[in-house]
Amino acid sequence: MAKWYDDSGFQSDIVLSTRVRLARNIKDIPFPRKMTDEAASAVVDMVEQSLSTMNMGFSRTDILSVSPLEREQLVEKRFISPNLARQKKPSAVFISGDESVSIMVNEEDHIRMQAIFAGFECQKAYEVISNVDSYMAKNLNYAVHQKYGYLTSCLTNVGTGIRISFMMHLPAICKAQVADSLFSAMGKLGVTVRGMYGEGSKASGYLFQISNQMTLGVNEKEITDRLNDVVNQLIAKERELRSALHKREGLSLEDKIMRSAGILKTSRLLSTKEMLTLFSNVRFGISLGLIDDIEPRVLNALMVETSPAHLAYGRDNPAERDAERARMVRTRIGG
Amino acid sequence: MAKWYDDSGFQSDIVLSTRVRLARNIKDIPFPRKMTDEAASAVVDMVEQSLSTMNMGFSRTDILSVSPLEREQLVEKRFISPNLARQKKPSAVFISGDESVSIMVNEEDHIRMQAIFAGFECQKAYEVISNVDSYMAKNLNYAVHQKYGYLTSCLTNVGTGIRISFMMHLPAICKAQVADSLFSAMGKLGVTVRGMYGEGSKASGYLFQISNQMTLGVNEKEITDRLNDVVNQLIAKERELRSALHKREGLSLEDKIMRSAGILKTSRLLSTKEMLTLFSNVRFGISLGLIDDIEPRVLNALMVETSPAHLAYGRDNPAERDAERARMVRTRIGG
Repeated sequence: MAKWYDDSGFQSDIVLSTRVRLARNIKDIPFPRKMTDEAASAVVDMVEQSLSTMNMGFSRTDILSVSPLEREQLVEKRFISPNLARQKKPSAVFISGDESVSIMVNEEDHIRMQAIFAGFECQKAYEVISNVDSYMAKNLNYAVHQKYGYLTSCLTNVGTGIRISFMMHLPAICKAQVADSLFSAMGKLGVTVRGMYGEGSKASGYLFQISNQMTLGVNEKEITDRLNDVVNQLIAKERELRSALHKREGLSLEDKIMRSAGILKTSRLLSTKEMLTLFSNVRFGISLGLIDDIEPRVLNALMVETSPAHLAYGRDNPAERDAERARMVRTRIGG
Repeated sequence: MAKWYDDSGFQSDIVLSTRVRLARNIKDIPFPRKMTDEAASAVVDMVEQSLSTMNMGFSRTDILSVSPLEREQLVEKRFISPNLARQKKPSAVFISGDESVSIMVNEEDHIRMQAIFAGFECQKAYEVISNVDSYMAKNLNYAVHQKYGYLTSCLTNVGTGIRISFMMHLPAICKAQVADSLFSAMGKLGVTVRGMYGEGSKASGYLFQISNQMTLGVNEKEITDRLNDVVNQLIAKERELRSALHKREGLSLEDKIMRSAGILKTSRLLSTKEMLTLFSNVRFGISLGLIDDIEPRVLNALMVETSPAHLAYGRDNPAERDAERARMVRTRIGG
């Protein structure tokens, strides 16, 4: 199976990736913020033990034993959170062989496991992570309250402990200036929208993270169904507005799209912000059938590969970084 | 031999073309402004007669018998002047088979003959047009004054009747902001500088016409030598400033150059002004050895082929014209 960041998947011109995350804690051990180093080490070992007979090729990485650069790379691949990268207590991440599942140990909760796939793959991600969760539950004694459900360090996760999030590409919704009203209506349905790079409807590259707000008082199926509904409506709206935009702007939109591809193939200096804008135009062009020589999969991979900690050169110099980013983009998408 | 507008030639990254023009009149016939239609017709026939035994494949085009569009196309290829295109009296242009020589009859003077070549080809252009002039002189009785030389309708052409002009591409001189002082110094040496598209150092595409001011009191050899000197100095200065600019701006200059090539290969809408700017960057890139898949010859041809009267479509609609221009550029330079 392809890695999430080097794949495309269903509805991939609008939904770049789907992630389902579960929060779990082990009974009778204090939450990470309060635990001793010894207890923390013990939890890491317990998790390792629980996975040892599972046939998914998990590999263990101890956060304190890897360099700050490696930690940063794990964050850029979304295997760990920035919080875990800064953790001072014994902590770890277990990553499955195909990189679809990662399990953080001793972040805010003892266990935060996620499955992540390219495209709109809510069902698949949910099944994969549920399977891992059930397997671990056989060996670990989860902290569960009969009335409230899974107990978690932060109240927002109590209950199902589930968070589903989609990285969505919504240029037409933003350009039609309906983003703010749509997003606020979604908030009332318990759905949160965050800019992936910068806040609000001005987010660079028109990329947004859409996720559920509540984990308590509704079951996992209800949460999943509701979010699926909202995302399907967003996809339909985005498609409708893309058609309308293309119809209205015609050649001037095509001009902007095709030039974006041309610039990606030839630039010698490329900032992250400009790259994301050009990628957005190219994704739009692919979905309109104007561009067929650039794969969405490659754009997804480049977003990770050209992140600061992944760049081979120029980590300390913005100009060199922009040069290296431009070189990598040219190499991958052909110039 | 290649046509001047579809060729490159010596020093072609700086000197796009060289033109040598001679003005002649026939003795005892009034200048065009004062002549009768009968006399005008007679002069056209006399010129045709004088060329009939010359082995250059001249073809005659009578201005009054071609459409305004065809006249405009002749102007865009620089075979005739805008003045001749508007002439109401019998008048004509004779164009040699290889299109290097054109002879206007009954423009401001009875005869204005020019040789035009791509690149820095002063000597060649002078020899070719002198040869045509000598041949015609055998059959025509030129108006010559013993003291002043060839008589012409406008005093600025009296004497040798020669005008040498170069189309030059001077981006580095302009960007170093030395253009105005250089051009005014050249004026004192009897050399005129005009923007090809717009005036002064802000001329679109950094294209200038450099020509001699005086035709009287100096002989043809002196005029040619002096202009050759000035152009050689301009070429040297432009090369020196291009190196300095490249050294100073490095990757950010290369970025601008390479993106320009990328945009030309992908745009769907392209105005003349933007095309000239992008062509200028690409020519600069070719001369720095950064671009090797675009031929200067093709850029020269496109400047003529994408002129309004040469475009196949959209002559009456600026947006369609920009679309057609973009299409032609993509087709010729590959996208």
